[in-house]
Amino acid sequence: MATQVIVLNGGSSSGKSGIARCLQAILPDPWLALGVDTLIEMMPASLQASASGIELAPDGEVIVGPEFRALEAAWTAGVSAMARAGARVIVDEVFLGGAASQQRWTDALSGLGVLWVGVRCEDSVAAGREIARGNRVLGMAVSQAQAVHRGVAYDLQVDTTHAEALDCARQIATRVE
Amino acid sequence: MATQVIVLNGGSSSGKSGIARCLQAILPDPWLALGVDTLIEMMPASLQASASGIELAPDGEVIVGPEFRALEAAWTAGVSAMARAGARVIVDEVFLGGAASQQRWTDALSGLGVLWVGVRCEDSVAAGREIARGNRVLGMAVSQAQAVHRGVAYDLQVDTTHAEALDCARQIATRVE
Amino acid sequence: MATQVIVLNGGSSSGKSGIARCLQAILPDPWLALGVDTLIEMMPASLQASASGIELAPDGEVIVGPEFRALEAAWTAGVSAMARAGARVIVDEVFLGGAASQQRWTDALSGLGVLWVGVRCEDSVAAGREIARGNRVLGMAVSQAQAVHRGVAYDLQVDTTHAEALDCARQIATRVE
Amino acid sequence: MATQVIVLNGGSSSGKSGIARCLQAILPDPWLALGVDTLIEMMPASLQASASGIELAPDGEVIVGPEFRALEAAWTAGVSAMARAGARVIVDEVFLGGAASQQRWTDALSGLGVLWVGVRCEDSVAAGREIARGNRVLGMAVSQAQAVHRGVAYDLQVDTTHAEALDCARQIATRVE
Repeated sequence: MATQVIVLNGGSSSGKSGIARCLQAILPDPWLALGVDTLIEMMPASLQASASGIELAPDGEVIVGPEFRALEAAWTAGVSAMARAGARVIVDEVFLGGAASQQRWTDALSGLGVLWVGVRCEDSVAAGREIARGNRVLGMAVSQAQAVHRGVAYDLQVDTTHAEALDCARQIATRVE
Repeated sequence: MATQVIVLNGGSSSGKSGIARCLQAILPDPWLALGVDTLIEMMPASLQASASGIELAPDGEVIVGPEFRALEAAWTAGVSAMARAGARVIVDEVFLGGAASQQRWTDALSGLGVLWVGVRCEDSVAAGREIARGNRVLGMAVSQAQAVHRGVAYDLQVDTTHAEALDCARQIATRVE
Repeated sequence: MATQVIVLNGGSSSGKSGIARCLQAILPDPWLALGVDTLIEMMPASLQASASGIELAPDGEVIVGPEFRALEAAWTAGVSAMARAGARVIVDEVFLGGAASQQRWTDALSGLGVLWVGVRCEDSVAAGREIARGNRVLGMAVSQAQAVHRGVAYDLQVDTTHAEALDCARQIATRVE
Repeated sequence: MATQVIVLNGGSSSGKSGIARCLQAILPDPWLALGVDTLIEMMPASLQASASGIELAPDGEVIVGPEFRALEAAWTAGVSAMARAGARVIVDEVFLGGAASQQRWTDALSGLGVLWVGVRCEDSVAAGREIARGNRVLGMAVSQAQAVHRGVAYDLQVDTTHAEALDCARQIATRVE
């Protein structure tokens, strides 16, 4: 079955966005790249920093509220519909709920050809890249590094600790059908 | 029928994005705001400046290629699915094809409660705002100002020439059911 | 005396940046545009949200600490040196300290041809534009609208409440020698 | 002599900005980080894409015109004045002219404690990172990778090919007096 959706799951600062852009550059067909950051940008400013939307604890933990969850469910359905309508889609995601998050995407994408990719990065390296990006609140990288992979099943995993985004993208591209 | 989608159509620098953010702030429920800029950002960098994707002529005219059109059709279907899944959606659009562009959205959104809004702005004022925004290529505002409204039917129109975004949003909000 | 520096002072969302870009577009010589936002971007991420750097109160008030003040003084000296070295400079500023802030710039720019411009905007309009810009924390516009002009002396003032940035820039340009 | 200025010189996508942000995070005092990108952002939009300002050839080569050079000279003087006024400054630079570019900075910074740092990265890795960043025009990384170091003298060099930005910053920090 042809791959219609590539899901990249990994913690903040693990290197998913760079891999997504490299995939867009090396895959022969045009692919859309989108993710949770796209969704957050679409939300009302008031939800971007509130208990009912999304909150950032001082230690970098991300807390997601009920209104965020409701919009996220509709967003997931919409992304799935884009793929069903013929777009090839790379989803750049952070499974804050681990296996439960994957289940939500599995349900939404049923019937589509999906390649599940885990993007790993050692805690200390991800934490360093978070500093290099200039984030004001630190800790998100470490807080998410392991948790987002809990119970998640992958077709393949890449590790950006010692590998460049482009090399990880090349590994993934060999698995795109 | 409850309004599920608000479509704002207007030329570049007519003030649609500001109106969309004001609508998000004043409407009682949370609304997602998205548009053609969201789509362009999702595309491969190579399509963002090419004949098969999207090109910007030196006079500011936007030329759209076949690969852009294909991804746009899937995007339209996806946005429609978000609304069907329960999200309230504000679409910030530039109907480069006038009535034909509206027809594509009408088809995709069939069965949904849609409020069609034209966002007008006098040519000279839009051209001035384009300069104030610091765009490197000028001319897009004037090139699109009238053309995007050709043959398009609206529920209401607002004019940002002498009105603030927040006031236009208030006018629109009274029509949201 | 030829104008070497144009200082635009006004509250947040009063429209200074748009006027600065329009001035750059219409003045015959090339002018650099810079301001307090440039300075903040140069600072360590840790100072961008801390008591010793710069803090944003929940009501939008900006509180500036001692380390911010020290870097700001060096920055002011640097901007002055750019003008002395031949660059024409537009400074986009928020005089949080009113007359005292102006005095600091007057001292730094002594001997240079300076055009002092007040950028006014009615509170309610500035507050609306703050919403239209999508700021997460609201209140800065109103908090600063009047305070930044207290005791400040100008060569001319413009009001963006009912005038476009380009028109304000044209008014200012007639005073540039 | 105490270090007052750290000059990071390297090609596009060699990792200078990430190193600068890490230095800001680990050095005990607050340092300003600025560079050629700061300067370009200050320039009129018309100079950002023109023969008298700065041009980007289709192969990624950067061509700099006379008006850019004039503003750059004033900018260099201004940065130097910031350091003389007490600010600690990290300069993130691309010596397009190699040794001649360094000479300009040496003249401007005379009498100050300067740490000259070369930031190296293998061509192929820098080219891959350019893709991962999503640049629309590719080639700048390779075009600059070697040329910017020609004839330049350093206090130390770091290589980001296999080292993280934070580790490079730590190496540099040991040399800051």
